[in-house]
Amino acid sequence: MLSKRVGDAIVIPGLASAHSHAFQRAMRGHCQRQQAELGSFWSWRGRMYEIASKLNPDSMYKIAKFAYAELAMSGVCAVGEFHYVHHQASGQAYDKRTELADAVIAAARDVGIRITLLRVVYERGGYAKDLSPGQERFCDSTLADAMLDIDTLRTNYADTKGVTIGLAVHSMRAVTRSSISELSSYAKKYSLPMHMHLSEQRRELEECLAEHGTTPVALMHQDGVLDKNFIAVHATHLAEGEIEMLGNSGAGVCICRSTERDLGDGHCEADKLVAAGVPLSTGVDSYAASDPFDEARAIELDQRSCREARTVVADATQLLRVASENGYAAIGMHGLSLEDHVTLDAQDPSLVGLANDRLDDAVVFCASSRAVREVDVAGTRIVNSGVHREYSTIRQEFETTLATMA
Amino acid sequence: MLSKRVGDAIVIPGLASAHSHAFQRAMRGHCQRQQAELGSFWSWRGRMYEIASKLNPDSMYKIAKFAYAELAMSGVCAVGEFHYVHHQASGQAYDKRTELADAVIAAARDVGIRITLLRVVYERGGYAKDLSPGQERFCDSTLADAMLDIDTLRTNYADTKGVTIGLAVHSMRAVTRSSISELSSYAKKYSLPMHMHLSEQRRELEECLAEHGTTPVALMHQDGVLDKNFIAVHATHLAEGEIEMLGNSGAGVCICRSTERDLGDGHCEADKLVAAGVPLSTGVDSYAASDPFDEARAIELDQRSCREARTVVADATQLLRVASENGYAAIGMHGLSLEDHVTLDAQDPSLVGLANDRLDDAVVFCASSRAVREVDVAGTRIVNSGVHREYSTIRQEFETTLATMA
Repeated sequence: MLSKRVGDAIVIPGLASAHSHAFQRAMRGHCQRQQAELGSFWSWRGRMYEIASKLNPDSMYKIAKFAYAELAMSGVCAVGEFHYVHHQASGQAYDKRTELADAVIAAARDVGIRITLLRVVYERGGYAKDLSPGQERFCDSTLADAMLDIDTLRTNYADTKGVTIGLAVHSMRAVTRSSISELSSYAKKYSLPMHMHLSEQRRELEECLAEHGTTPVALMHQDGVLDKNFIAVHATHLAEGEIEMLGNSGAGVCICRSTERDLGDGHCEADKLVAAGVPLSTGVDSYAASDPFDEARAIELDQRSCREARTVVADATQLLRVASENGYAAIGMHGLSLEDHVTLDAQDPSLVGLANDRLDDAVVFCASSRAVREVDVAGTRIVNSGVHREYSTIRQEFETTLATMA
Repeated sequence: MLSKRVGDAIVIPGLASAHSHAFQRAMRGHCQRQQAELGSFWSWRGRMYEIASKLNPDSMYKIAKFAYAELAMSGVCAVGEFHYVHHQASGQAYDKRTELADAVIAAARDVGIRITLLRVVYERGGYAKDLSPGQERFCDSTLADAMLDIDTLRTNYADTKGVTIGLAVHSMRAVTRSSISELSSYAKKYSLPMHMHLSEQRRELEECLAEHGTTPVALMHQDGVLDKNFIAVHATHLAEGEIEMLGNSGAGVCICRSTERDLGDGHCEADKLVAAGVPLSTGVDSYAASDPFDEARAIELDQRSCREARTVVADATQLLRVASENGYAAIGMHGLSLEDHVTLDAQDPSLVGLANDRLDDAVVFCASSRAVREVDVAGTRIVNSGVHREYSTIRQEFETTLATMA
């Protein structure tokens, strides 16, 4: 049992959200469709490009700050930011090339949560496909430029507590095979976490088959990219044999159910991943919702609907580990979940009547963000009585920022 | 758009939970399994029987009161109580036969929410099957006894504001075909809502096929039971043609995703039901969770995972209608959702940054119980600053009650 009862409180380890695109918090509530206007991941992406095109360092900072404050108020103490908006809207680099990454890191530090900045590489619109409008600011002129930025970030934050630097490949669609190999060697050399969107959409599989003659995970396996520092994000549509490849390699999978459900991605076979020994973690991803309890239980509950049985992926203690320890490990912060604490109110209606010998069950299957009372990160209290210490200011700045972007 | 912005608040119609077993709130957090101990609906039911066997009028009242107070704090103003624990544990009726129904109704009235008491008929353990231990207190000696109780309740509460009486058939498993017909005639004669668990579990379909040579909804169609006052609860596993039968009859379907996900029931094809013109409503059912926003959006989100597309069942405005107007109608309270009001805090983190011209999107897809600030039922404020007016007392009584049942 990971949860502890202390008087009228339940204390759990810090929770981590291993996959975040903070700026997408600006999209919440803006990109559902009306009935008879059938949407898809791809139509949603169009709206995301619109928002991304309007970002500047100040708005990036203020949106991320709100996104992270909201996460903190739900018990998240550490975030993996899959950061892919790097340059000016034209594609031209900022004078300080890491300007936007720095803004995101500053947001996390000012909110008081830990961050792993996963500097994303994005090279192309797709196989034999030019960049689409809106993608320019995600791309570097050369891979060397991107790697230089990773070096810069590693140097600049080497001594900054609570900040870790990792790298990421946007997807098979957006990066060439040779670049992925080069990035993988770099990640292995320095033991950096390396994340990648993998097998989120069926179209991605078709495109990978067309270009490389095999499916994404199999290709990464073939190229020796999968290892214990590698995290496949989503892994929704795996081909035969790919689950074992992940399991044998030590690679992890980050599942983001609130986003996957919102975008209609499909069902990830989390039960088979766990059976193959793949460590799972969770992520808020697109900020459709910001509730780490819901992310954790949805991994199990969605699979129950598919298998028509109960306890098919993991029990509550294992799911709580997925949301805490595994999430920290996935972003290169091994062991730190125990240095952070989330205190839940045992008198919150969702938790009243729980069994004291089954606290993890209550926390994972019943708690919501309303039950979060205090959050302590590395000894500093950042949330008190359920509210972040600077919530009012952060909220107002976020609203003002959104107004200027409308 | 059903939601209205008023300063820093968002006001929505009252929400209804059309399917509740209030006493099951005592089970929350007590009936998950450990890993490798694969559970099912049927193992969960064993635990439910244990709790049911310990109920008395006082504990029924106090558990229901807490269950309803929690619902109120999540925005629920009206509940359909599918009430099937009628008698003493031995099966012997209480001196006042409706003692337990009265306790549940008193709980709702004292909390301040509206209630439709759906008096359930339960006759047998199954086709050619004696009662199992624990089922005695659900059953009446004769159908006439059950109908007498319905008469009594209708008479006793005829002039009680906020209380409606309806009837229910537990399931095809538990009631004979001739009794269902008789109950249906009674419901039609007095225009009472008639609810029934239908096609929740595959085993139920097999048993119905074995006994009657057809599937449950088809049988109800054949016997003329389906009409606009009839609500099929769950309707998860429908056979070919059954969706059209429901659609043509005017019958509604109550979907209870938090319970269905918890119990591993499967996926209800809500998109096809809506396309066939079936009005949907939602229910808290087993109290695995008590969040009407989550119930409503899960209908759409779970189907997105199955169809791998977005906006497949309904848009936000339609889903909000499912959670409010349709829920009230399903329990015989047509039009009353507009006499109740739920006020959400637009400064709750989940709702900040929403689009004022797409408020329903924000409410349905983003709100959680934390955002609920005030709840007014028929002009009386029962929830203030997110807390029920008697929360502290109700919570303590609930905890004391659970301790005596342990």
